[in-house]
Amino acid sequence: MNPQGDFHVYDTTLRDGAQQEGLNLSVADKLTIARRIDELGVGYIEGGWPGANPKDTEFFRRAQTELDLTHARLAAFGSTRRAGARAADDPLVAALRDSGAQTVTLVAKSHDRHVELALRTTLEENLAMVRDTVSHLRAEGRQVFVDAEHFFDGYRDNRGYALDVLRAAWESGAEVVALCDTNGGMLPPWVTEVVEDVMTVATETGGRVGMHAHNDTGCAVANSLAAVAAGATHVQGCLNGYGERTGNADLVTVVANLELKTGRQALPEGRLRDATRIAHAVAESTNVPPSSRQPYVGASAFAHKAGLHASAIKVDPDLYQHMDPAGVGNDMRLLVSDMAGRASIELKGRELGFDLSHDKELLTAITDRVKELEAAGMSFEAADASFELLLADLAGGGRPTYFEVESWRVITESGGAAVGVGPGAGTLEAVSEATVKLRAGGERHVVTGEGNGPVNALDQALRGAIGRAYPEVAKFDLIDYKVRILEAGHGTDAVTRVLIETADGETSWVTVGVGHNVVEASWAALTDAITFGLRRHRVG
Amino acid sequence: MNPQGDFHVYDTTLRDGAQQEGLNLSVADKLTIARRIDELGVGYIEGGWPGANPKDTEFFRRAQTELDLTHARLAAFGSTRRAGARAADDPLVAALRDSGAQTVTLVAKSHDRHVELALRTTLEENLAMVRDTVSHLRAEGRQVFVDAEHFFDGYRDNRGYALDVLRAAWESGAEVVALCDTNGGMLPPWVTEVVEDVMTVATETGGRVGMHAHNDTGCAVANSLAAVAAGATHVQGCLNGYGERTGNADLVTVVANLELKTGRQALPEGRLRDATRIAHAVAESTNVPPSSRQPYVGASAFAHKAGLHASAIKVDPDLYQHMDPAGVGNDMRLLVSDMAGRASIELKGRELGFDLSHDKELLTAITDRVKELEAAGMSFEAADASFELLLADLAGGGRPTYFEVESWRVITESGGAAVGVGPGAGTLEAVSEATVKLRAGGERHVVTGEGNGPVNALDQALRGAIGRAYPEVAKFDLIDYKVRILEAGHGTDAVTRVLIETADGETSWVTVGVGHNVVEASWAALTDAITFGLRRHRVG
Repeated sequence: MNPQGDFHVYDTTLRDGAQQEGLNLSVADKLTIARRIDELGVGYIEGGWPGANPKDTEFFRRAQTELDLTHARLAAFGSTRRAGARAADDPLVAALRDSGAQTVTLVAKSHDRHVELALRTTLEENLAMVRDTVSHLRAEGRQVFVDAEHFFDGYRDNRGYALDVLRAAWESGAEVVALCDTNGGMLPPWVTEVVEDVMTVATETGGRVGMHAHNDTGCAVANSLAAVAAGATHVQGCLNGYGERTGNADLVTVVANLELKTGRQALPEGRLRDATRIAHAVAESTNVPPSSRQPYVGASAFAHKAGLHASAIKVDPDLYQHMDPAGVGNDMRLLVSDMAGRASIELKGRELGFDLSHDKELLTAITDRVKELEAAGMSFEAADASFELLLADLAGGGRPTYFEVESWRVITESGGAAVGVGPGAGTLEAVSEATVKLRAGGERHVVTGEGNGPVNALDQALRGAIGRAYPEVAKFDLIDYKVRILEAGHGTDAVTRVLIETADGETSWVTVGVGHNVVEASWAALTDAITFGLRRHRVG
Repeated sequence: MNPQGDFHVYDTTLRDGAQQEGLNLSVADKLTIARRIDELGVGYIEGGWPGANPKDTEFFRRAQTELDLTHARLAAFGSTRRAGARAADDPLVAALRDSGAQTVTLVAKSHDRHVELALRTTLEENLAMVRDTVSHLRAEGRQVFVDAEHFFDGYRDNRGYALDVLRAAWESGAEVVALCDTNGGMLPPWVTEVVEDVMTVATETGGRVGMHAHNDTGCAVANSLAAVAAGATHVQGCLNGYGERTGNADLVTVVANLELKTGRQALPEGRLRDATRIAHAVAESTNVPPSSRQPYVGASAFAHKAGLHASAIKVDPDLYQHMDPAGVGNDMRLLVSDMAGRASIELKGRELGFDLSHDKELLTAITDRVKELEAAGMSFEAADASFELLLADLAGGGRPTYFEVESWRVITESGGAAVGVGPGAGTLEAVSEATVKLRAGGERHVVTGEGNGPVNALDQALRGAIGRAYPEVAKFDLIDYKVRILEAGHGTDAVTRVLIETADGETSWVTVGVGHNVVEASWAALTDAITFGLRRHRVG
């Protein structure tokens, strides 16, 4: 299929997605993300607002030489000309022309009150601005789309005027007008009703209808689907549902629903099968941790906890999942939990490359060991790496010992200076220092590390001590640290579970440690993390 | 309105929500969460599966004396009786009877293939299991609901049989049958179609239809709304959308949409205005970081990237938001948290015995200080005691200083003996030792304490040092300790928030501390905890 053909998937991650609180993309980030989104096979990638934002101007400049897109066309976003001027003379319109993008998406006001209160011009002048800017860019050979901002609210307040804006855009040569639920308050039945009404104007003028949804009611995906069902043939959204407030429609979820649930081809054949990899790669670039509960591509999206069901899952996985996860490049995962039965351990072992099907005795021994460890507070369901080390130990020729720890110690003390943050008058800024003694590579290492917490200091000292024998640990980076107190009612006397996520620039892995002492639990998770990373690098 | 009346909001956070990967609730957590959910005003709280899960049995036992619900009824979840037995003789059915819950929700298979492949019985026997179990529990005086598992998939494969299961349930006395999209693959238009069909059977039998949606297509909320629009009068979901895989329908989003968008009263008048606070408090108990992009209650849900819109927002905020955030207890933009509005601070102050209504300047100063502290990572919403100390400091004649800390230090070191628990070969049993130097009661005290963790050791040393001047601290007991990493992606380098709950045999109080160093944050919370306890004992 042609991604610029009968149906458009239009990505606005780089423009509207970047409005998300805390999200800050460099030009290099934007170029990397654009390449990833192109791999997904979308028709259009909105790169930003050249002229209004120097970073976006730079992005379009560099894109001309550095981006070689296979499927997508780049679209430049901008606004209709200023009131009382000519589009041909407007410097912001000029920036759109100069961006090098063959597609321009113009935002236009379609809600009468916004024209009057925010734009501070007349309703008639706003229509003239649409007509003039669209016509001008069409005359300059550009493909023009229009985003009708606040369209749904405008339609409710003044249907006639909202439709006049659409008509003005289409009649001046806009190929698509995307109806924007800018404030995000719509529900699917209302979208259906409004889009059906709009379709009559679209048909009169020969224009196409698009949908741009925000998730403020939790219905961005459903609203997008409702618009398509009512006749829209262009759908906008962002990777991972990024965007201002509650985010834009999650583009992968919308497309997966369209293709897998309603049978409408939205991406070139086979592209959806890379969705999970692409969604996670984009999350690496944005540095927003991906949600494990994200539909289709989340790490938990096809994870099953129930030991009870494991035998039925072996009989027929379709009984317990709404689709084959391979369709979006995801995988079924069985969570090893205290419900774990032999069947789920066998399946989990297979997933990690250990065939346990031939040795029933070994399988029973492993299952018993897992139950024993989980009864003591371990939890493998979020710590595949620790589970893999356990299997290596029991079923794979032994856990590798790259180092032997002699002892460790960590001191945390108040610095004496009062800290500004916190209402506690007694708060004193603290420093941590750790010393680790171990043998690695045939030598004894005694290394001290400092950190802004006991685990941070231990991590520094441990990697310092091992790094002399195994330089690759310098690449390992502790990226997430979670503490969970297991028995409430005991306070700091309780059993503590620590989960540590470590990355090496290519992938990441999670390890677990348990102990009465939070530092001891952290130490167990840290040593597992290093051992797992070294094993992966060495085993290949 | 009566939450057990014409429309039911049915919360399953404690049962289906607890299936979420990584979520592990103690009985104490479940009791705390049940109290919070009750504050929201839902009609039913599903507490778990007594008999199948010892923790859930314990929850129902303790609930009888420890839970005093205002709005909600507790429901016990369980399954229809085993094939070939009598409901009256089934030990799991007995556990439901013995749970003390007046409402029982029975899960029943309604998909023919699941009956045959997972349940391994005949279609007719499955119907008999439904009839027998429902009738038996009705005869025992219980209100009975039925969850029709895999209903939508079953309806597609064998509509007649799926409807037979519903009919069997209703005819035997079930008040509600909830249609479960167990695998989560539905889209709203299909839900509409199926529920409309089911309504004809419901009308014949006088039964009520409920909806239980999962979010695998990103449409759990929209599917729930579609079911209600088609006639369902009972809607199930979980706080914060917790649940297996991609989660269950987010109950707050569903209810907010029903009340604020479709005008259907779902909770008692005014309850929705506490939704943000409650959603966040529950997230503290589950220790799952709340999503800032969560509809309605997310920290970013009404956050606007300022600049362009700021002046128009001042003219008319409704131009840029789909509803007044106060309707769900949330706030627009600059408010760092739901606590930070002047009105809520004034109310909270009144609750804690500080009248702030006369001094607008003081109220503004406190609000600004709270915003500043919350921007640095503090969170008062779960730490009333720290907030009360802040008010005492700013509005009550100063924070009491019972002791002046000179310095503290804590050492944690490996003992050398390998520990049996945990797969990590490097795990060494650890001990912690803390020394605190402070002045109290006119004297300098230097006390060392031991503990099985750094915070435990500090707590021992601190109370030892203070105890000479203030013997009552011996009664204080640290009963819960929670750690939350605030900035993901930084690992142990991130800002840490610690919540500590302390009890004195009569009551308990929660304090908060924040810092880059987890020990420093814990120290701040500990000193607040002691100060608050002493103040309460002395002020009366």
